[in-house]
Amino acid sequence: MTLSMYSASVPVFTRMLKNLLAIFDKAEAHAAANNIDLQTYVGSRLADDMIPFSGQIQIATDGAKGVSARLAGQPLPSWPDDEVTWAELRARLQKAIDYLATLSPEAFTGADTRTVTLKIGGNDVEFDGETYLLNRGLPNFYFHVTTAYDILRHKGLPIGKKDYLG
Amino acid sequence: MTLSMYSASVPVFTRMLKNLLAIFDKAEAHAAANNIDLQTYVGSRLADDMIPFSGQIQIATDGAKGVSARLAGQPLPSWPDDEVTWAELRARLQKAIDYLATLSPEAFTGADTRTVTLKIGGNDVEFDGETYLLNRGLPNFYFHVTTAYDILRHKGLPIGKKDYLG
Repeated sequence: MTLSMYSASVPVFTRMLKNLLAIFDKAEAHAAANNIDLQTYVGSRLADDMIPFSGQIQIATDGAKGVSARLAGQPLPSWPDDEVTWAELRARLQKAIDYLATLSPEAFTGADTRTVTLKIGGNDVEFDGETYLLNRGLPNFYFHVTTAYDILRHKGLPIGKKDYLG
Repeated sequence: MTLSMYSASVPVFTRMLKNLLAIFDKAEAHAAANNIDLQTYVGSRLADDMIPFSGQIQIATDGAKGVSARLAGQPLPSWPDDEVTWAELRARLQKAIDYLATLSPEAFTGADTRTVTLKIGGNDVEFDGETYLLNRGLPNFYFHVTTAYDILRHKGLPIGKKDYLG
């Protein structure tokens, strides 16, 4: 009847980030076969005032890491958003996957009622862990993973929803 | 330490579909103020071989309804994908929200271990309820909600992630 806060977060983030890594593999093979510079993907975006592919990967990994750390009551690792190449974005995905692997399920005991405080529009907003995960952490994470996928599809990369779902 | 299968599904779907309804409101106001025909949004897509906005709304609502019904052990309502106008897509969002409101939390007792069988590539694939929700139901739902948002942003609608998150 119930699922654990750990199951609903860390393995979910890890799985989707690994799916993105597999999409990176496909993009590299496609670029090599069609003489496409991978850097053209890095700066692509769906609208002039939207965040480019690089930012989507940075925020998705930031979310996976930040949500998990907060729920586990661990210090929040700070990662500069300084990736400017495809290879650096790939390394950032791996870095997030590696970080998630350091968190133990036991650290999530009580995570559903743990208070999480976020700065939103300059104000401190408090959530309980469950609301934070379900109403912010997961939808925000999926937003950036999907938008990264959508940017690559928009640029013509032949991938499908099977690649996204894994 | 735990969250219920109900909390992780029905209210999450309902919340995101209501956020889409609020985005529909903004789109209508923007279209009226700028002399845009709302029908131009309905058929828009991010790549020639991607599903248009109308399909994104149909699949998102189909997912919300189907995942919830399967987890609750209820008969699966069958909805034809016959919406061709903006107003019909709005009605479909409301129909899904209304359907979700009929499901009781009690129906989700045991949903984490309930067997869900899906046809995938012509084969029957079995999932336990928890795996089905976390690895397919939620990522697939968020994919279509986000892609619907991304299509509107790509078409120039002035909305932001706050509208998506609610």
